[in-house]
Amino acid sequence: MSYFRENIEKAQGYTPGFQPAGDEVVKLNTNENPYPASPKVLEAVRGVSAEQLRRYPEPLGDEFRKAAGEVLGLSADNIICINGGDELLTICFRAFCDESRPVAYPVPTYSLYPVLAQIQNCQRVEVGFGADFGLPAGLANTYSALTIVCNPNAPTATFIHPEELGRLAKKLEGKSILLIDEAYVDFAEADCVGLVKDFDNVIILRSMSKGYSLAGLRFGYGIACQELITGLMKVKDSYNVDAISIAAARAAINDQDYFKKNVAKVKSERTRLAEELRKLDFVVRDSHTNFVLARLEDAGQIYRKLIERKIYVRYFNQQGMADKLRITVGTKEQNDKLIGALKEIISQ
Amino acid sequence: MSYFRENIEKAQGYTPGFQPAGDEVVKLNTNENPYPASPKVLEAVRGVSAEQLRRYPEPLGDEFRKAAGEVLGLSADNIICINGGDELLTICFRAFCDESRPVAYPVPTYSLYPVLAQIQNCQRVEVGFGADFGLPAGLANTYSALTIVCNPNAPTATFIHPEELGRLAKKLEGKSILLIDEAYVDFAEADCVGLVKDFDNVIILRSMSKGYSLAGLRFGYGIACQELITGLMKVKDSYNVDAISIAAARAAINDQDYFKKNVAKVKSERTRLAEELRKLDFVVRDSHTNFVLARLEDAGQIYRKLIERKIYVRYFNQQGMADKLRITVGTKEQNDKLIGALKEIISQ
Repeated sequence: MSYFRENIEKAQGYTPGFQPAGDEVVKLNTNENPYPASPKVLEAVRGVSAEQLRRYPEPLGDEFRKAAGEVLGLSADNIICINGGDELLTICFRAFCDESRPVAYPVPTYSLYPVLAQIQNCQRVEVGFGADFGLPAGLANTYSALTIVCNPNAPTATFIHPEELGRLAKKLEGKSILLIDEAYVDFAEADCVGLVKDFDNVIILRSMSKGYSLAGLRFGYGIACQELITGLMKVKDSYNVDAISIAAARAAINDQDYFKKNVAKVKSERTRLAEELRKLDFVVRDSHTNFVLARLEDAGQIYRKLIERKIYVRYFNQQGMADKLRITVGTKEQNDKLIGALKEIISQ
Repeated sequence: MSYFRENIEKAQGYTPGFQPAGDEVVKLNTNENPYPASPKVLEAVRGVSAEQLRRYPEPLGDEFRKAAGEVLGLSADNIICINGGDELLTICFRAFCDESRPVAYPVPTYSLYPVLAQIQNCQRVEVGFGADFGLPAGLANTYSALTIVCNPNAPTATFIHPEELGRLAKKLEGKSILLIDEAYVDFAEADCVGLVKDFDNVIILRSMSKGYSLAGLRFGYGIACQELITGLMKVKDSYNVDAISIAAARAAINDQDYFKKNVAKVKSERTRLAEELRKLDFVVRDSHTNFVLARLEDAGQIYRKLIERKIYVRYFNQQGMADKLRITVGTKEQNDKLIGALKEIISQ
């Protein structure tokens, strides 16, 4: 006999990427930023007092909301602080979906979406991407309560233009929330923030894990019209972000100079990495994220041989992905080690 | 037209206690510990590196689980790390309850339980406490999937003996999870940890907010048999606790000497505060928490007059509570200010 709900009993749960430890490891498997966060973040962390830890934090993280609002040209009322981007996904499933209210999203995409659908016990409508990973026309007609588009998309590294997502938002008005998961948008050329001014059904998810080098901090934020933010606030835990991470995330978002330089470095290495991979006969699309998706027939075998050399990339042994490797853009040194190892493996 | 589910649209959400700022304020309204955390906690926070923030944290918080297991005489496999005690409540509602699987709990109790029931859209069975806030006999027969007992209970500050909860667990075996919310147990004379060895349906919730003076950190843990922990892990967000709070919470739980002295100080002030309040004709039961519930007919009026003096206690304007104040045990100086102000107000 199980005490759990049947859908939970059946669920497998999400499998986080492997976290190998050790200085000699080249870790290019979970899309962390290879460069450290702004020094102002550590300053903020070290400035936290015992008194700040003793007391409950400000429940909405207002300090951060104000700072993010200023950076985005929006009001603090358009922002919700979250304990990592995944928490906003969870909150949205709980707020909008249930047994009679499905979720829809294009596939392949972030593998957490079906896991959360199973936990919330809602139907999921998975629509295959169009040619070149364009927005599938069918996505506007799924009769779902929640439509998610990961943009730029993982694991394909592709990007759909904000105008096109605006047209989708328009078609979904009055019918479905459009949640645009912008976890990787810091590495793209445009973003969808403008849509929250025009549409009452658009929610944008942002993460501090990638562009701001703060995966260990668990901090992100949602952006939407004030009515949606107010509703999402009811669903989140009362004190979902802690005093230290509010201070650290505020310091990070306030240091836009550092952030822009950091992102520029990653993009420059991304171009070089893609070119080197193409020289080795990998098929690599232009990436709009901090990783590249590289196709070569022997992907699974190469993946295992890289592990023997303590180089970790991500391999999804599933339909449509078995001939591809998802490779996080590392530092110049890490990328060189990867390319060197690939040359050896391929020439064997 | 609302995009939200109907139950979410109707929900009011939880109202956190007011968080007044300013050095001159005497804040006895949200049950924070009046003394700072162990100095080892700040050391741990300041020892965090940019590299720890750059990378994803260990997904289960294993460092903390091991430390907590050692303190409790259990295995790390019996522990789940949570982003504040409230997160375990949320996880349990999502894991065990739905429209056909109700929750039951004695009342009055922590006002978050009905809020979470509404968000999960499950029926709630509220059973009035027995005489002297003893366990109500009817709680064993509610046909609920989840039974919650807050012990020691808020806002009554009363305590039910672990043996009695063991008998309840036995009656609920094969039928219902018994979640014992021990957020305040650090200030009681006994706890229910022993029950997780005997029962496969008992989950214990612990918080670092009260006994360890870390309300600002948002860290707690759940204790249960390994099968239940494995199931709860599927429902939690993949990286629900961050690298800094794992390190800080581990430092806190490893400093048991400091913790015990801190708790002893609070308990000693609690005795004095209760005695002083009784001298002023308040009816005060012996407390097993870090607050006291004090009854006097004019409670609402006294509450407002205390605010005029920048002294904040908690007043619940609801049935059975309108003649009571919930007062957090403060430092000696804070308690003296409160007693002085009450003397003035009452003699007017």
